[in-house]
Amino acid sequence: MLCLEVPTDAAWVDAALRDEVAVLVDHAHCEMKAASNALSLAARHPRDAELVRALTDLAREEIDHFQRVLGLVTARGAALGPPPVDAYAADLRKRVAALPREGAELPSLVDRLLVGALIEARSCERFKLLADATAARPEQAELHALWAELLAAEARHYRTFVELAVRAAGGDRPAVLARLERVARVEGELVASLAAAPGQASRAAIHG
Amino acid sequence: MLCLEVPTDAAWVDAALRDEVAVLVDHAHCEMKAASNALSLAARHPRDAELVRALTDLAREEIDHFQRVLGLVTARGAALGPPPVDAYAADLRKRVAALPREGAELPSLVDRLLVGALIEARSCERFKLLADATAARPEQAELHALWAELLAAEARHYRTFVELAVRAAGGDRPAVLARLERVARVEGELVASLAAAPGQASRAAIHG
Repeated sequence: MLCLEVPTDAAWVDAALRDEVAVLVDHAHCEMKAASNALSLAARHPRDAELVRALTDLAREEIDHFQRVLGLVTARGAALGPPPVDAYAADLRKRVAALPREGAELPSLVDRLLVGALIEARSCERFKLLADATAARPEQAELHALWAELLAAEARHYRTFVELAVRAAGGDRPAVLARLERVARVEGELVASLAAAPGQASRAAIHG
Repeated sequence: MLCLEVPTDAAWVDAALRDEVAVLVDHAHCEMKAASNALSLAARHPRDAELVRALTDLAREEIDHFQRVLGLVTARGAALGPPPVDAYAADLRKRVAALPREGAELPSLVDRLLVGALIEARSCERFKLLADATAARPEQAELHALWAELLAAEARHYRTFVELAVRAAGGDRPAVLARLERVARVEGELVASLAAAPGQASRAAIHG
């Protein structure tokens, strides 16, 4: 799906379906982090008005989603706790930063954007699993609609990040797509290793 | 005006009117910082859904203003540079953190919110000066409309921060208003000292 190399383990879906509040809480934190991340990336590249505009559009949409998900959390009598350590995103950034650069010398911004693309792609894949699993359950119509809407949004954000990466690479699409493939391989290895770690499959996180 | 103890020096208005692009660029950075700041404050208080909602509403509005101001910057053929060091906001936070706490023991969040209130109040005051100064200049109608709109928004944000501080103090309004007065005194001293520093009056910044 999209550029993903390794599918999410079926055990993840079972765990997520057993604890919808955990999924909602986790995803609220993800949206908040995505918004902050988009703003901080924009603030670091102030001269590029087009990049800044795209990233601030993204941040605003992540805030909208955050608020919507927070509404569902509080409607269930739950609350957000402190944000969990996001080993997936942190590890992904670290592993991609350590990847050797080959061929065309791409600016480091390209990697930051491609990591963003992969995180969106993985969210999209997981929301698709949740949307499919809740499609035939009328009692979960509200959540089903949310998952379906978020999966479309994440797919759109994935494309935005890839296009911004192509722009940041001065339009060198083949070089960016080759790099995307490498980043996707790293992400696939990471997801496989997290799924194998004890306790991870039961943590119903969207982003890893 | 609002809670401010010291008015902005008239020299500031003259400098700002001489260089509208500098004011716009500076204010774009301020809106971006305000948005990031609101998000990071929200992320640090995840359990308080009402606070989180108010701060994320604020962040979204600051992003909207940022984009609007960025549009005016690019329309003038200018670009944002790296964000300037914001001595005003950094000093204000530091000075308020060093204020002795007396009487009712207020949570530190109250001070964070009151610093936010003061920054908004100062912006509001300066936009009022700019709005008044451009009111009779038809060639500056676009900027006049922006300053007028922003001054109303900053006044609203000021009230939001004060009300959030009252909430964070468990509803103890008198204690918060007394603290606000102390914070405003500190802010007034800071503005006076920055205006007296060489070069500061000519830096056409909205936030200090």
